[in-house]
Amino acid sequence: MIDKMHIDALRSLLGEKGLLTEPNDMAAYETGARYDQGRAAFVARPVFTEEVSAVVAYCVRNGISLVAQSGNTGLVSGSTPDGTGAQGVLSLDRLTAPFRLDRINRTLTAGAGLRLSEVNQRLEEAGLFFPIDLGADPRLGGMISTNTGGSRFLRYGDVRRNTLGLKVVLADTQGTILDLGSGLRKNNTGVDWKQIFIGTSGAFGIITECVLNLEPVPRQTATAFLVPASHERVPDLLVAMEEALGSYLSAFEGMSGNAVSAALAHVPSLRNPFERGVVPDFVILAEISRSSPPREGEQPLDAVLEDVLGGIWEREDAPLADAFVGPSHEMWALRHALSEGVKHSGRLIAFDLSFRRGDIMRFLDHMKVEMPKHFDGVTICDFGHIGDGGVHFNLVVPASDPRLSDGAFEGALREWVFNIAVEEFDGSYSAEHAIGRKNQIFYDRYTPEDIRRLATGLKAITSPGPLGSVTF
Amino acid sequence: MIDKMHIDALRSLLGEKGLLTEPNDMAAYETGARYDQGRAAFVARPVFTEEVSAVVAYCVRNGISLVAQSGNTGLVSGSTPDGTGAQGVLSLDRLTAPFRLDRINRTLTAGAGLRLSEVNQRLEEAGLFFPIDLGADPRLGGMISTNTGGSRFLRYGDVRRNTLGLKVVLADTQGTILDLGSGLRKNNTGVDWKQIFIGTSGAFGIITECVLNLEPVPRQTATAFLVPASHERVPDLLVAMEEALGSYLSAFEGMSGNAVSAALAHVPSLRNPFERGVVPDFVILAEISRSSPPREGEQPLDAVLEDVLGGIWEREDAPLADAFVGPSHEMWALRHALSEGVKHSGRLIAFDLSFRRGDIMRFLDHMKVEMPKHFDGVTICDFGHIGDGGVHFNLVVPASDPRLSDGAFEGALREWVFNIAVEEFDGSYSAEHAIGRKNQIFYDRYTPEDIRRLATGLKAITSPGPLGSVTF
Repeated sequence: MIDKMHIDALRSLLGEKGLLTEPNDMAAYETGARYDQGRAAFVARPVFTEEVSAVVAYCVRNGISLVAQSGNTGLVSGSTPDGTGAQGVLSLDRLTAPFRLDRINRTLTAGAGLRLSEVNQRLEEAGLFFPIDLGADPRLGGMISTNTGGSRFLRYGDVRRNTLGLKVVLADTQGTILDLGSGLRKNNTGVDWKQIFIGTSGAFGIITECVLNLEPVPRQTATAFLVPASHERVPDLLVAMEEALGSYLSAFEGMSGNAVSAALAHVPSLRNPFERGVVPDFVILAEISRSSPPREGEQPLDAVLEDVLGGIWEREDAPLADAFVGPSHEMWALRHALSEGVKHSGRLIAFDLSFRRGDIMRFLDHMKVEMPKHFDGVTICDFGHIGDGGVHFNLVVPASDPRLSDGAFEGALREWVFNIAVEEFDGSYSAEHAIGRKNQIFYDRYTPEDIRRLATGLKAITSPGPLGSVTF
Repeated sequence: MIDKMHIDALRSLLGEKGLLTEPNDMAAYETGARYDQGRAAFVARPVFTEEVSAVVAYCVRNGISLVAQSGNTGLVSGSTPDGTGAQGVLSLDRLTAPFRLDRINRTLTAGAGLRLSEVNQRLEEAGLFFPIDLGADPRLGGMISTNTGGSRFLRYGDVRRNTLGLKVVLADTQGTILDLGSGLRKNNTGVDWKQIFIGTSGAFGIITECVLNLEPVPRQTATAFLVPASHERVPDLLVAMEEALGSYLSAFEGMSGNAVSAALAHVPSLRNPFERGVVPDFVILAEISRSSPPREGEQPLDAVLEDVLGGIWEREDAPLADAFVGPSHEMWALRHALSEGVKHSGRLIAFDLSFRRGDIMRFLDHMKVEMPKHFDGVTICDFGHIGDGGVHFNLVVPASDPRLSDGAFEGALREWVFNIAVEEFDGSYSAEHAIGRKNQIFYDRYTPEDIRRLATGLKAITSPGPLGSVTF
């Protein structure tokens, strides 16, 4: 699909190991984590920012379209090539340097190709970590391009909040390298350009390096499962917990009974923690934590949590039906197994929605009533982050359902859900997965015209060349 | 200076009370908080976003330059008209609606003309506050345009981190109104446009409304004055405090002995808290706080702080020379009086710098050595935020110094300081005051050409009309 002349030119820029063209070598880069199978013209694997710049400049000058690929763990077809075979993949997987810890500044300057797990392993000794808690193990560049949040958002915020600097290559004829911030926490000397590259699916430039804020590793943790008195009382419960605990509260995760049951059924290592094994209709995993080590004279965190829950329980009209403090590891194991459990329950159609915190349970209750009317036999297995408004709204269809062979069925279901989430509940169709090819149609539909016009203009002044999976 | 036709047209858009043209009425809007005296063609005082839009559209169509003015408490000539008399002021002071608290979402939708103090007073009953702690009392629009940080940055971050939505009027021929975010905490569906208007001195659009993150009001606080073993050991002390306290630590403020002495000399209500009244060379105000109310069985915060300081004190090679826990109100009163004290010590030449945290004391020590060599008789009265790298680097020159009558003296001093801060120490020439007319020359000098080109392009696609005090 691509002229051999171009392959030779790119190989001369990157060396033998820096460019893959054999189908076997490229296969892993062509396949997405959940959906998606594309075809790559080549896979470029630069090691330095300057190599990225050279490749990008060459491709822009020759009209070759590129998509940057980081850990390839995304769920919206943002990091794989399209099906034409004409698009090249620019993989970050060898951009693993530098790794420079500034202990006093609590920052790390890191190559965008490092994996989250590796970063946190290497930081362990310093007692610090990059505080984004995810199920997957992405590379840093992709985390920034999608602005992931995860399960400890309530305490630590998203990637945007923890990014203090970026090095970015623009898709222009020069492959311009922008050096945006070097770890200053306060700096207001013009447009904060790094914000443009955070959460925008890699369309405005390729992130090669970043400066990250680090946080002290939590030294004490206590967790509890809370069963709300009813769906309507979940917001009251959240407010009561925040009033009593303030910034102690580090997670407030919602789990539907359907999702919990799916995890218990399909992940054999889990223990059913509920009384007589009866899974409640909705459960909340609440966590409190301290980054200070335990000190003499200090009340243990389990006791703090028990006290607070006791206080809420004793209130007249308490928003709690049941609650118990338990081992953190076990409780989080159940939370983290939900995704796996749901996946094995049938064909999964997943949504990554968000709402204002007061609207989540209203939305879920609305869908529980409306779903059978519109899409009979579809089970809602939601879970998510009540504390920050994120909902992994998962729908499971029995694998044997004949409607699955009809391509239009899934499309109709997606349209229906998104319309209710965005139009009726003023929510987001992508909380933390960004856009990718998968959500392009919804970007086009739900983004006001003025904003689309601005984004097109921004694309033209930053990266006019063909880059990424999203058309802005 | 401005055609009467335009005045009539603007009056018809805004009504009698909405447009000031009498010199007496305009005087307060023409005078800056510290420097600066300009002349306004008129002062427009719209009440609604739609009025802002109409005024801006009219002015852009007729080539009339506007500068938006919020609380007018800024220190970089960002909110006053220039001296030509041709520029109109668009004041936010009547844009005080809406005020919509969403208790469950912990957000406030507010008019950009509300003052910080009023916002927090009105939120008191709900136990929430907008967690930006400042000496001044600005209006929200200006806080966003400068992205202020303040003294509790370490715990709560800056305005950027706490802004979840904006309504903005662009300076184009339509006065386009952008509605950017309505309080979702997780939403990654394209460019986060609100970031462009944060910290950019009002040049890219006029903020009329915002959605703010709120935090639970701290219910328990403990403070201490720490005297470091030496300047070099201040970073070790910060690391030791963060290791022991984690996110308990809500402030770590540095105060030079000169600034403390100035405050004690000029603010009579202050008590000298130091042993035998001897002010140390450098003092740190450390604060820990909890947003949870005191509970039985819990160690009081004063005791926590005493314990932690004792532990650090007992270390071999401890970074502490002295430390004492004391009444929060009194300790903060001294901290907040520094600015006032310094102002009364002579002619003040102020800088709002920031550095990586490990570089602050190195910079201060460097300047202490170099200053007498280059600018004899200038006293350094610095204070600031060691925890986030911000330094209010204040220079005091005796009022009788004959060099003050030479305009070139202050300019040369500014050049010299900024060059060392930016070029030698890789710091910022504006930590939290933004650019304004005052820093334009330094923006032009220190901003890389690629970034200036992008900013010019961004200005053209957002607000091509003449707006604000800064030329991007």
